[in-house]
Amino acid sequence: MSGTTNHLRAGVVGFTGYSGAELVGILKRHPGATPVLVEHRAQTADEAPVFDDGTERRPLSAEGVAGLDVVFLATSAEVSIESAPMILKAGVRVIDLSGAFRLRTKANYQRWYGAEHAAEELLAGAAYGLPEFYRDKLPGQKLISNPGCYPTAANLAIRPLVEEGIFDKAAGIVCDAKSGVSGAGKKPSQKTHFSEAVENFSAYAVQSHRHVPEVLMNSGLDEAEFSFTAQLLPLHRGILESIYLRTREAMSHADLAAVYARHYANEPFVRIYPEGRFPDLRAVQQTNFCDIGFRTDPQTKRVTIIAAIDNLVKGAAGQAVQNMNLVFGLEETAGLL
Amino acid sequence: MSGTTNHLRAGVVGFTGYSGAELVGILKRHPGATPVLVEHRAQTADEAPVFDDGTERRPLSAEGVAGLDVVFLATSAEVSIESAPMILKAGVRVIDLSGAFRLRTKANYQRWYGAEHAAEELLAGAAYGLPEFYRDKLPGQKLISNPGCYPTAANLAIRPLVEEGIFDKAAGIVCDAKSGVSGAGKKPSQKTHFSEAVENFSAYAVQSHRHVPEVLMNSGLDEAEFSFTAQLLPLHRGILESIYLRTREAMSHADLAAVYARHYANEPFVRIYPEGRFPDLRAVQQTNFCDIGFRTDPQTKRVTIIAAIDNLVKGAAGQAVQNMNLVFGLEETAGLL
Amino acid sequence: MSGTTNHLRAGVVGFTGYSGAELVGILKRHPGATPVLVEHRAQTADEAPVFDDGTERRPLSAEGVAGLDVVFLATSAEVSIESAPMILKAGVRVIDLSGAFRLRTKANYQRWYGAEHAAEELLAGAAYGLPEFYRDKLPGQKLISNPGCYPTAANLAIRPLVEEGIFDKAAGIVCDAKSGVSGAGKKPSQKTHFSEAVENFSAYAVQSHRHVPEVLMNSGLDEAEFSFTAQLLPLHRGILESIYLRTREAMSHADLAAVYARHYANEPFVRIYPEGRFPDLRAVQQTNFCDIGFRTDPQTKRVTIIAAIDNLVKGAAGQAVQNMNLVFGLEETAGLL
Amino acid sequence: MSGTTNHLRAGVVGFTGYSGAELVGILKRHPGATPVLVEHRAQTADEAPVFDDGTERRPLSAEGVAGLDVVFLATSAEVSIESAPMILKAGVRVIDLSGAFRLRTKANYQRWYGAEHAAEELLAGAAYGLPEFYRDKLPGQKLISNPGCYPTAANLAIRPLVEEGIFDKAAGIVCDAKSGVSGAGKKPSQKTHFSEAVENFSAYAVQSHRHVPEVLMNSGLDEAEFSFTAQLLPLHRGILESIYLRTREAMSHADLAAVYARHYANEPFVRIYPEGRFPDLRAVQQTNFCDIGFRTDPQTKRVTIIAAIDNLVKGAAGQAVQNMNLVFGLEETAGLL
Repeated sequence: MSGTTNHLRAGVVGFTGYSGAELVGILKRHPGATPVLVEHRAQTADEAPVFDDGTERRPLSAEGVAGLDVVFLATSAEVSIESAPMILKAGVRVIDLSGAFRLRTKANYQRWYGAEHAAEELLAGAAYGLPEFYRDKLPGQKLISNPGCYPTAANLAIRPLVEEGIFDKAAGIVCDAKSGVSGAGKKPSQKTHFSEAVENFSAYAVQSHRHVPEVLMNSGLDEAEFSFTAQLLPLHRGILESIYLRTREAMSHADLAAVYARHYANEPFVRIYPEGRFPDLRAVQQTNFCDIGFRTDPQTKRVTIIAAIDNLVKGAAGQAVQNMNLVFGLEETAGLL
Repeated sequence: MSGTTNHLRAGVVGFTGYSGAELVGILKRHPGATPVLVEHRAQTADEAPVFDDGTERRPLSAEGVAGLDVVFLATSAEVSIESAPMILKAGVRVIDLSGAFRLRTKANYQRWYGAEHAAEELLAGAAYGLPEFYRDKLPGQKLISNPGCYPTAANLAIRPLVEEGIFDKAAGIVCDAKSGVSGAGKKPSQKTHFSEAVENFSAYAVQSHRHVPEVLMNSGLDEAEFSFTAQLLPLHRGILESIYLRTREAMSHADLAAVYARHYANEPFVRIYPEGRFPDLRAVQQTNFCDIGFRTDPQTKRVTIIAAIDNLVKGAAGQAVQNMNLVFGLEETAGLL
Repeated sequence: MSGTTNHLRAGVVGFTGYSGAELVGILKRHPGATPVLVEHRAQTADEAPVFDDGTERRPLSAEGVAGLDVVFLATSAEVSIESAPMILKAGVRVIDLSGAFRLRTKANYQRWYGAEHAAEELLAGAAYGLPEFYRDKLPGQKLISNPGCYPTAANLAIRPLVEEGIFDKAAGIVCDAKSGVSGAGKKPSQKTHFSEAVENFSAYAVQSHRHVPEVLMNSGLDEAEFSFTAQLLPLHRGILESIYLRTREAMSHADLAAVYARHYANEPFVRIYPEGRFPDLRAVQQTNFCDIGFRTDPQTKRVTIIAAIDNLVKGAAGQAVQNMNLVFGLEETAGLL
Repeated sequence: MSGTTNHLRAGVVGFTGYSGAELVGILKRHPGATPVLVEHRAQTADEAPVFDDGTERRPLSAEGVAGLDVVFLATSAEVSIESAPMILKAGVRVIDLSGAFRLRTKANYQRWYGAEHAAEELLAGAAYGLPEFYRDKLPGQKLISNPGCYPTAANLAIRPLVEEGIFDKAAGIVCDAKSGVSGAGKKPSQKTHFSEAVENFSAYAVQSHRHVPEVLMNSGLDEAEFSFTAQLLPLHRGILESIYLRTREAMSHADLAAVYARHYANEPFVRIYPEGRFPDLRAVQQTNFCDIGFRTDPQTKRVTIIAAIDNLVKGAAGQAVQNMNLVFGLEETAGLL
């Protein structure tokens, strides 16, 4: 239950989903943790694996989670809001991968998630688990809110520019985001039906995605300065965001590289590309890296930034394990390189 | 209502499904017919087209179909069994794309479809609409049962060999069939969820597919002689079947080509490939062709046949229009080339 | 050779490429034209079709093109520059699908295409074939330069806003463009190798695409106002562009819809979407439509526009036929609906 | 250079290819080995990684390989034939992933690979590295020929049935094989161009694939008894083979399961599925497993077997590491689970 524990027992609720299954896979390879499957509901026959690998299973209950060091909630916001208080009360830390505890106020949650928040009392104490910004606040935390997939890439790319006052606020920042279909989860729908999504590409939640407030809160942008569109790529995993802005002063590639270096030179999971190179999804799939490439145009001051992550790893399960490592005082990269 | 009719009014039930939408598209380009959308149930907002192209809509009822020349049922077997009697009673011909009327007996339907047949009295009178075999029986028919997608390719490839007594019955015939996901229809399911089907390939209904009896009935094979496996390709449209057999006598490519020529030399929609060439899906997508290529091995008498169709055209909507043309005495290829 | 001709004979150079094959397909269905395959080089055995459909073939030479009404060049800029003068000299009109004649000056061509222009004398006389803007200039033209795929969607979406002085020049316009792989042509390369492109997504020509000057010239934007990134989608056909800007005054959806209506109300191939609906690629694939949807935010004045076309149709072959129809006085939509 | 070595230094030639890169990845995670990149030719700028991870590089020469324990050749047969003698002469073991040393005679190589074999003297001494059959012969071997991808799955599925004399030789065995595009390697070609392969499926090397003799040699089948067709799936990685045969006696699922259990009960990388379940590609991707499911029909004695592997792992790099482990006396599963 602390950094002195030799080996963590880490429960995973929602282990049949894409993020949950990714989590179990990472934890199996982790030198300092072992996954425990925590069953929120009975599995159907279809979900049962053909070969049982002997991973321990427990029910989602106070007794079920007793003795675990941490429980990951790879569930919907509704299930997280319902389960987190019980788990915390049982004295077990929670790392929540849903959007339940990412916003700070009930009103904001109501606006973007369209529902009452039934565990309002936890909002203030939840730590936003983006280690590159909030690493110092994580050790010992009881409730970690794991960032959304889109905001992880966007914040890592944008925040240094806001902090250093580099960008032209009058022009604003555009973030054109594209995600693989796994971002929509495992539940079938018309939009994610194979025959609808293949050979197709579409925008959704144009200027209205619930991840927008997460970017604003953590990057320091105002709502009026930020345009965001989410789009569905016909592939399984990966997010690429193309970010457009103008700088106040003319900047060369080296100038902007220096900005990023000041923020990320020692970050194990942020890679800044040299001039003329840009990340594609292949570069980050199955990794916990956030890769960032950019082009500046000193004459017009326009900058284009390309940021890529694997939505299931740095955008979900990998970052959750990175957070676990920090909460419990393990090596930050354990199980992730 | 006959070949002298200048222009057919053709109702389509199930026009939001993949086969139904394909039918509407073909009928719009057809020189002798006009589609009418026949609504089996109220459309949801999601299904409503963004731009109304003015195609006439009618309800599925005796009054709704009155005055139409023919109604295509691009529906499930259940809906077809429920609707066909009413439409026929209203004096309108029916071309059914489901499996409802393909088998000849109630018992056989029960075995393969796992349900009672509620319109048993129609089974005997339904004409199986595979024009290459049964062209002469189609003119004037009231109820046409449009063949299944897998059986269309399999029967066209196999039947000439059975009829001419060429194949070695002791060795049997193997048909390894692969279909795009549109064959599973438009209703979302776990198996056809994009993230499950992409970068994946799987067998289903191994030796138990309900299309098997259709092949047996129309090719002349015995059940013990025929092995059939259906498989799901990660693509939208197209069926390719690899068929394996041994011949009783050694045959060259020319010998087998002569067999097919005797059966298909004048067929507008069957194309036999020259030696060394085989059809792929690209060759048949968006067409009503069934393409057949093969390789013989005179030494071992083994023959491998590759047959390909577009499951939504020759395997469904295109063949249905081909049947309509024949029923009403139009040019067989009208709207299809 | 003029609008009074009953039936046009239309040569296609580059008919084995994706745009060229699409052109031949459209021309075969065209009520007023017949395709003639014009061979620029001998076909390899692999390129030879399995079934010859009897389409006439001719060599690319003065004798070969004699008697044709028009020749489409679905070729590289280099081949177009080499061939166009000869065809024009033979008295045959040319519709060029390459970038050879889209820019107005030799210097501009040198800058963006990185090569000397060997037929400089033709640049001034070439008509830019975007009918929605330049319809009146097309009848009787001898050399039509068919627009690039990206600029077609971008210009149709942007130009009305520039013309009406609506957008905030200080904020500029961002066009984030995504294209299917067919946009890269049929020649294999590492980037378009299946295993590299599938499950991948990447940006290329960031702020340096040769289509940029085409947008600037025809939309009225300044270079400093326009940010453009091209990206490769893992699918065959279709372009979707997400366009971001701020308006000078607050605008509702109805306000912006009125702007587009003033420009496109009578356009047969531009469709403006109602509030809350946006085009995806499926809406435009295999059609000559350019579909445009948008969302406005009166509070922040931000506007997001989604524009989609099929790069092989409205972005290439379809628009080329639309131009042919106008040059020869045929119905503009002939063969295209 | 033996099982007592604490840590193996393993060279990889062809590390930019798909199998080679997979090998490097496995070796990096291997507890008892470290990869060394052996450069067969200078890398192009495009091939150079954006971030150098510090993996040692050496030239492919006698000096370059000196001190290595083993060199993997993830190269074409031509390069393997050219390089293997030099490496062996330098006293370094070779595990060859090409087809260069899989057949036993120069004549057979000439027949199936269509070329003279320039290192004939090595054929007799090469060990065929399919551990499930030849485990005992591997320790200490100097030249291991790693099996082809198709034969690995086919032999594992078929050989037990041949050995036990179960199958009806008169009916023969059909193996309908499908592979992802990575099986064709990284070099671009028309057939593997994205736009050609996507939404497509095609057969190739019908009854003439060079992997056929590997199946015959190692399964015990005669050429006349075996029909094999290879087909290209529109996906990156994975092989699924559907195998059809008749048994001499009627067999239940339990009967056939007992046969496989006799051969594979203790195999760490072969998994036999329970009745009613079949492997798909997802089950084996990124693993070294060969999964086998089947259906028997006691009445007609027909059996359908579905076997799946990841062509880059059990079909190439994973099996190569399994072989390395056995050659050097390491735990067979090291680095592979």
